[in-house]
Amino acid sequence: MPEQPNLVCPIPIKDYPKVVLAHGGGGSFTHDLIEKMFLPAFENPTLSRLHDGAVFTTDSGRMAFSTDSHVVSPLFFPGGDIGSLSVYGTVNDLAMCGARPQYLSAGFILEEGLPMETLWKIIQSMSRAAQETGCQIVTGDTKVVDKGKGDGVFINTSGVGIIEHDRNIDPTEVHPGDAVLVSGDIGRHGMAVMAVREGIEFETTLQSDCASLAELVQDLLKANVPVHCLRDLTRGGLATAMVEIAQTSGYSIHLDENWIPLCREVSSACELLGLDPLYVANEGRLAAFVPSAYAERALQVMHASPQGESASIIGRVAKEEAGLVTMTNDLGTSRLITRLSGEQLPRIC
Amino acid sequence: MPEQPNLVCPIPIKDYPKVVLAHGGGGSFTHDLIEKMFLPAFENPTLSRLHDGAVFTTDSGRMAFSTDSHVVSPLFFPGGDIGSLSVYGTVNDLAMCGARPQYLSAGFILEEGLPMETLWKIIQSMSRAAQETGCQIVTGDTKVVDKGKGDGVFINTSGVGIIEHDRNIDPTEVHPGDAVLVSGDIGRHGMAVMAVREGIEFETTLQSDCASLAELVQDLLKANVPVHCLRDLTRGGLATAMVEIAQTSGYSIHLDENWIPLCREVSSACELLGLDPLYVANEGRLAAFVPSAYAERALQVMHASPQGESASIIGRVAKEEAGLVTMTNDLGTSRLITRLSGEQLPRIC
Repeated sequence: MPEQPNLVCPIPIKDYPKVVLAHGGGGSFTHDLIEKMFLPAFENPTLSRLHDGAVFTTDSGRMAFSTDSHVVSPLFFPGGDIGSLSVYGTVNDLAMCGARPQYLSAGFILEEGLPMETLWKIIQSMSRAAQETGCQIVTGDTKVVDKGKGDGVFINTSGVGIIEHDRNIDPTEVHPGDAVLVSGDIGRHGMAVMAVREGIEFETTLQSDCASLAELVQDLLKANVPVHCLRDLTRGGLATAMVEIAQTSGYSIHLDENWIPLCREVSSACELLGLDPLYVANEGRLAAFVPSAYAERALQVMHASPQGESASIIGRVAKEEAGLVTMTNDLGTSRLITRLSGEQLPRIC
Repeated sequence: MPEQPNLVCPIPIKDYPKVVLAHGGGGSFTHDLIEKMFLPAFENPTLSRLHDGAVFTTDSGRMAFSTDSHVVSPLFFPGGDIGSLSVYGTVNDLAMCGARPQYLSAGFILEEGLPMETLWKIIQSMSRAAQETGCQIVTGDTKVVDKGKGDGVFINTSGVGIIEHDRNIDPTEVHPGDAVLVSGDIGRHGMAVMAVREGIEFETTLQSDCASLAELVQDLLKANVPVHCLRDLTRGGLATAMVEIAQTSGYSIHLDENWIPLCREVSSACELLGLDPLYVANEGRLAAFVPSAYAERALQVMHASPQGESASIIGRVAKEEAGLVTMTNDLGTSRLITRLSGEQLPRIC
């Protein structure tokens, strides 16, 4: 850590004098904030791993620790609400470290004037989600800000989980030859929230995929699949997750567009709004990196789980073109996949 | 936990249809929210202890886990800022459980338009505070909300600490005969923030007491003081902390007004604004409950620490008048101390 405070802001003022919505979008702007501001200031080996949660070792074994603030708008959307989302969000981050989520904290920032019944509905939803995932909400905090200085309710959840095996499940464990699996069709959460926000009607109601992935991860571990890396496909979507892992691992990832599962509603909603589903947020989908010899077994385990019914093997890891992600389409042409640039869907989680 | 969701909001709509600022004030409104909404919904034995943090047991020993969201306004005040405050806030909650704080998370909710240099100053301040307390910020999250839907920056910190001894340091351990100590003069933080907010000038600049109490707690433990309970005197001040502990322990607390340390600046600022210093928030002061035979030793340890120079023995615990707090003044008359009712100083932390 620096002995002397560094008084010069590392993001040049002439480029970005102020925070913009894109800094919270999970794409290149967020990456910039993390790389240039948070990492140098808070420097330590655990944070530098840039995984969904931190893993640390205690006398008895390893634990995972993670945090997520939730600012989704609207507070209620088809398939979920800010309450269940805030529980699943942190549960999933812990699961991505290979941990069994155990204890959660809940920090509320309420806006003056929030209807008490709305808060009660949200608390009930958190309670149900915690119960379902076997987690206990053991500590909390409530702050209230003046009307017009917040937006209904923001919820931070942090969590602690136990790692009950010896594997390192981490982007640095990804190796050439690994198969890439996705646990289900992509883009539902982002498009469900957008549909409500924009008042778009579909033939059927598009539901968020918002769900706990902890059971699915435990199923993979119990089936002795030697999982190298897990990543939930939240802000920035599948594309951004792949770019982050390719860059951290130092290998390339090659995806096949034909195998990426996508439902008709998401596909048409994306067309309507001019969005690429590859960049749309999910809240109940993960990508798994496993040795290719275990890919079929992993797929079977996923298919047997309610959270993995539409799972698919979507690509592979290679040594060449280090750090790049490419995607081959129907016609056999290949395109380069980059990190989400700017803000596609603000306040999606 | 309830099998069926309870659809009727437990705080009667006719009484409080909406959230008011006082629900975040740490007094009787906050107490109501916790007792009627959070506890029934999230019911579990750890949460029900209502301590500053949760304590859980792992194979190797006990750990503490705590969370705090920070919404202080203004972001910078004499003696601190939201960055250092957010680190000390969670560090102190862990210390109150008798834990050695180790790992912190940082969850930022930024408002669109926040100057990047302001964010950098805050991050630097968090970094220095973390370094000073020997904590690592190991995981984080950043969200951005639209201009007018936040207020510059809100910071949630959660933390994990290790409990390296066998004592239960908890309000239920308080016993008749315990001496009550306060680690320093009260009311500085609240009045320093109010002075900036209200534009009040004093002869000298009133500084917040914002500081880590972790070292002071370690000093007490190393000196083998059999500490029964610790509580930092944040929102609601000394008075509210005493009422909470009296109610949880089931015993009464009797304070002597003459012994409660108070500096001249806080005293005159409180007079000017018509506030009772007993209810003003502190961010670097604790109350300790120790067997009376150890009171002098505890006081010596506190006096030897930079955080406890003006420490004082301010009262005692008794069996009679269970759950009540009284304070005797100069004239020998005794008055009943109640929980902060309503909101005295909004957004103080």
